Amino acid sequence: MDAIGRKRWAIAEGYIPSQSSFSDRALVSHETACILNAGDRDAHVVITIFYADREPIGPYRVTVSARRTLHLRFNDLEDPHPIPRDTDCASVFESDVAIVVQHTRLDSRRCEVSLMSTTAYAEA
Amino acid sequence: MDAIGRKRWAIAEGYIPSQSSFSDRALVSHETACILNAGDRDAHVVITIFYADREPIGPYRVTVSARRTLHLRFNDLEDPHPIPRDTDCASVFESDVAIVVQHTRLDSRRCEVSLMSTTAYAEA
Amino acid sequence: MDAIGRKRWAIAEGYIPSQSSFSDRALVSHETACILNAGDRDAHVVITIFYADREPIGPYRVTVSARRTLHLRFNDLEDPHPIPRDTDCASVFESDVAIVVQHTRLDSRRCEVSLMSTTAYAEA
Amino acid sequence: MDAIGRKRWAIAEGYIPSQSSFSDRALVSHETACILNAGDRDAHVVITIFYADREPIGPYRVTVSARRTLHLRFNDLEDPHPIPRDTDCASVFESDVAIVVQHTRLDSRRCEVSLMSTTAYAEA
Repeated sequence: MDAIGRKRWAIAEGYIPSQSSFSDRALVSHETACILNAGDRDAHVVITIFYADREPIGPYRVTVSARRTLHLRFNDLEDPHPIPRDTDCASVFESDVAIVVQHTRLDSRRCEVSLMSTTAYAEA
Repeated sequence: MDAIGRKRWAIAEGYIPSQSSFSDRALVSHETACILNAGDRDAHVVITIFYADREPIGPYRVTVSARRTLHLRFNDLEDPHPIPRDTDCASVFESDVAIVVQHTRLDSRRCEVSLMSTTAYAEA
Repeated sequence: MDAIGRKRWAIAEGYIPSQSSFSDRALVSHETACILNAGDRDAHVVITIFYADREPIGPYRVTVSARRTLHLRFNDLEDPHPIPRDTDCASVFESDVAIVVQHTRLDSRRCEVSLMSTTAYAEA
Repeated sequence: MDAIGRKRWAIAEGYIPSQSSFSDRALVSHETACILNAGDRDAHVVITIFYADREPIGPYRVTVSARRTLHLRFNDLEDPHPIPRDTDCASVFESDVAIVVQHTRLDSRRCEVSLMSTTAYAEA
């Protein structure tokens, strides 16, 4: 399939609640960047995390193989530094091939699950 | 009415919960691609589903008649293969005429309903 | 202020739940098209509603005055025909001046409120 | 990093519930404009708030420093005038450098939290 998407994406919202009502991984509070690489070349993606009151941290590097999707939990990012909980942040994704990025939060601070999602901002 | 939309769309998020708190079809956990074909020619849409760890599966074929909307539940896709539950996926839609695609999940794993929605990513 | 936005918008998702857990207007299940007319000329907006299995219905006509926002509930549309509840639909907005359209659902079928929102699809 | 984004953004939806089930700032009902300034120059942002039945109010001025994100709660805007609760509104953001704006509401009128989010409308 022809590649679809853009190479630079931004998610201005970011916030990982430290609290969850569940220990099941599926229902733990998390923020996710769903990345689709529909094309035939692996995507090497560099992520930078921005904060309100300190310099950005990065690069975080992930590879999304050709014809695969990666639902990347910000909770799981460790290198060069874990993302602090309960902290406002934002993110930029820079890929060497066209990808699509969609942002989702599952929030289970309360005992019911709440969801939000949006296609991220794209350019180039 | 003049057609509105684009011919290629992508939804990077996809996840059908296997659990639901209800048996009513309206409240069973589901993911939907709402497709609008506002124009005067039928839209022949080819859908490909992408996964984290296996080759994409498709084509799934749907027709959206002229001047109609189809709210397609991924839960209902059967041919060539049902979409597995509790599995990260993503999707690309390729149409022969301009359409609009909006992505929605209704999640009733817990006993309250949670919703999310976003206009999908479009190009061409 | 200079106008901002586009003249044609589409919302592929549409569904007004017939059930609500509350009688307070703010918490009755509803779908809204939030329309912003930031410019200095009134916006005359023509809305067409699309269905799965019947011809589109319209025109519904609304005016959004210069420098005003209108949060239009689909529940309130009456002329030429009320929108049926529990029915899949979609909508196209055509304006004579640039506007911005954002789609929101508040769903209170269950006793907790669930929300979703997305910037609609724009062109022209 | 190269700047990413646009200079003019609009959020057609706006509504701050007056009620909350919690007093914890994180869970008080709020609407947020998440602003990312990924570039190397401070962003001077002018915000105008639009209403259904009165003239727009502004300018509200905020600065987002270079390489920072600001998750701006509409609840906190005070000058030239606080945003009334339980009132339909909309907003336009005009920046002197490229930024990205994402809109989020956390709604805790009921005792569970509900979330919605969307990338705002961008141009220029």
